[in-house]
Amino acid sequence: MVAMGGGPETPQRSTGDGEGSRDLLLAVLPWPESEPQHTIAKIKEDFPNLDVHYVQDYLNKADRGKTNVPEELYKRAKYLATLSWLPPTPDVVPDLKFIQFFSAGSNHVANHPIYTDSKIPLTTASGIHGPQIAEWVIMMDLVHSHKYIDLYEDQKKKEWSQPRGFGVRDAVGKTVGVLGYGSIGRQVARVAKAMGSNVIAFTASPRRTPESKKDNGFIVPGTGDPDGSIPSAWYSGLDKESLHEFLKQRVDLLVLSVPLTKETTHFIAADEFAILEESNPHGTFIANISRGGIINQPDLIKALETKQIRGAALDVTDPEPLPKDDPLWDAPNVLITPHISGSSVAYADRAFQVLHENLRRDRDGVPLCNLIDRKRGY
Amino acid sequence: MVAMGGGPETPQRSTGDGEGSRDLLLAVLPWPESEPQHTIAKIKEDFPNLDVHYVQDYLNKADRGKTNVPEELYKRAKYLATLSWLPPTPDVVPDLKFIQFFSAGSNHVANHPIYTDSKIPLTTASGIHGPQIAEWVIMMDLVHSHKYIDLYEDQKKKEWSQPRGFGVRDAVGKTVGVLGYGSIGRQVARVAKAMGSNVIAFTASPRRTPESKKDNGFIVPGTGDPDGSIPSAWYSGLDKESLHEFLKQRVDLLVLSVPLTKETTHFIAADEFAILEESNPHGTFIANISRGGIINQPDLIKALETKQIRGAALDVTDPEPLPKDDPLWDAPNVLITPHISGSSVAYADRAFQVLHENLRRDRDGVPLCNLIDRKRGY
Repeated sequence: MVAMGGGPETPQRSTGDGEGSRDLLLAVLPWPESEPQHTIAKIKEDFPNLDVHYVQDYLNKADRGKTNVPEELYKRAKYLATLSWLPPTPDVVPDLKFIQFFSAGSNHVANHPIYTDSKIPLTTASGIHGPQIAEWVIMMDLVHSHKYIDLYEDQKKKEWSQPRGFGVRDAVGKTVGVLGYGSIGRQVARVAKAMGSNVIAFTASPRRTPESKKDNGFIVPGTGDPDGSIPSAWYSGLDKESLHEFLKQRVDLLVLSVPLTKETTHFIAADEFAILEESNPHGTFIANISRGGIINQPDLIKALETKQIRGAALDVTDPEPLPKDDPLWDAPNVLITPHISGSSVAYADRAFQVLHENLRRDRDGVPLCNLIDRKRGY
Repeated sequence: MVAMGGGPETPQRSTGDGEGSRDLLLAVLPWPESEPQHTIAKIKEDFPNLDVHYVQDYLNKADRGKTNVPEELYKRAKYLATLSWLPPTPDVVPDLKFIQFFSAGSNHVANHPIYTDSKIPLTTASGIHGPQIAEWVIMMDLVHSHKYIDLYEDQKKKEWSQPRGFGVRDAVGKTVGVLGYGSIGRQVARVAKAMGSNVIAFTASPRRTPESKKDNGFIVPGTGDPDGSIPSAWYSGLDKESLHEFLKQRVDLLVLSVPLTKETTHFIAADEFAILEESNPHGTFIANISRGGIINQPDLIKALETKQIRGAALDVTDPEPLPKDDPLWDAPNVLITPHISGSSVAYADRAFQVLHENLRRDRDGVPLCNLIDRKRGY
């Protein structure tokens, strides 16, 4: 992300109207423009030939994407930054070079003609959730291991009770098993290693070469594990036998950060809890920041009740919202939050950082980052 | 810590009785022998000429050090591992090569004849608190920035309220100011950097050379900042002007890990809160794991009430225990725990790791680690 300085280095293309040779970046996003202002300013500085037009979309989910964007605007857009809004058809955006989505996935637009009937490159904001979700995982693991809830309840009662804080088992020498070694899992690994833990990784396909261990998506600078050098061991395979081999490694903290697919649905169920219990007498703590469906929830409740595992922190449940009468609320040693771990005030700004990177790659003629493979679906 | 293998490599000295040429390590400690068993086993393996005799001292503070240790035992001890117990006078331990204390300091024995009237080298367990106390700091900062208490109170009510989780400002790009860059501050720095934060350090004396930036005490392997390479900037000086220069750096998390001395008493007071407020519009979060006296507590309460700072996490207060009617309990955005951040089930085992290191140094004829300077007092 080096400033270009001087004038534009790219050939200037006419957009066919009175705007002359300047390029248009159209942003249709639910956040107020002030939130990502820092990186928008950087984009303007680094791409002086670019005009940025920001349209604020509706913030509430139900109306998101329904905002009215003037046709004369999107018709001459060269780049589009969006969360939900899309031009009605591909033919009305003849100059569009790529669309930068501000979400990690693209499921929500998979039936749109832009997706099904065009070849306009689509890129996601995958990678920008790493820091805040990793912090959620580390926080929850510490809240559990340092018995913070007891300490907090004592504070409310103005009670100074030291024995409440005894028995802490800190992270030094613990084994952190990261199931799904993507941008989130890699940032958990980075922090866990700094805390003195040993990290092992699990991926769907084997990563035997240094090249295959790399993170090829967007990485928030200074975070993650770009080279895949943190894990002391790698495990792989979506079959139960491979999964069990990984779970037998005496895991203290098991992080579920694998995408929900047919194969990973109820990936962690009764058999897996039994393996965790047998391999780790201290008990495994599970953190799920993926999707509720990764875990067989009735089996989880049983595992918590019978202390097969130490506890669980869940930012995702099945279903969501979790109904008031769901027995999961009453399970022992469970920490539940309402699918908020990805929230960050830096969200919009960080997504613009992905866009900045892709504008640079587009200018330099190198492949875009976080490019969606339409056949694969992500 | 390489196993010696084969037989003893050190010249064998007679201890003057029927024990022949074997050396005695006498341990008088309040923990059950099972807790440090892992490292005791390693010591026996690496020093095959050593006999280890473990006497369990009383666990409760009032009686600690009062246990009855047979004279024939300590008379022939070559090494002593202790928390509070000491032989009555130096002349009854003619063969003692050094005493390994299991506390970070030695204030509690500063008037004992062994301290005042002998030259027996005394070493501390300084450095073993780094991991667990750093975890406490990181946990508290996350509990605050991720609004965990709101999320927890919602969980208790079985409420799924997403807006509660919004507005999180994660650690990427934040500035962490570590006031007192010892073993604890260095481990906070290591984790904070892994989370994407920028670390700046403050020390009493200037650290201008690479050599002076090093941590010369015991370091739990895989933790800390041995070379002092993590901070992007170093500040120093115990005068107010130097302190203020450091506090003006727009600090997001200020970690107080400086020893309590005459100079550092009420080091952080009204003037300092005003500086923090002016330099950081987001507000500084303060974590104190040193001593309550570092902060002027009435000034802190005012700073919290007037939102000069974002909040504070305190494991130490003035006085301790904090009385039920102390106004600090009612201050906004304060997290209080009863001086427990140093607690860890690994404590005794980790102190034996310091002893292991010192046995190695004694054998190899290199200076002991964590050696007390009797004149300096620590």
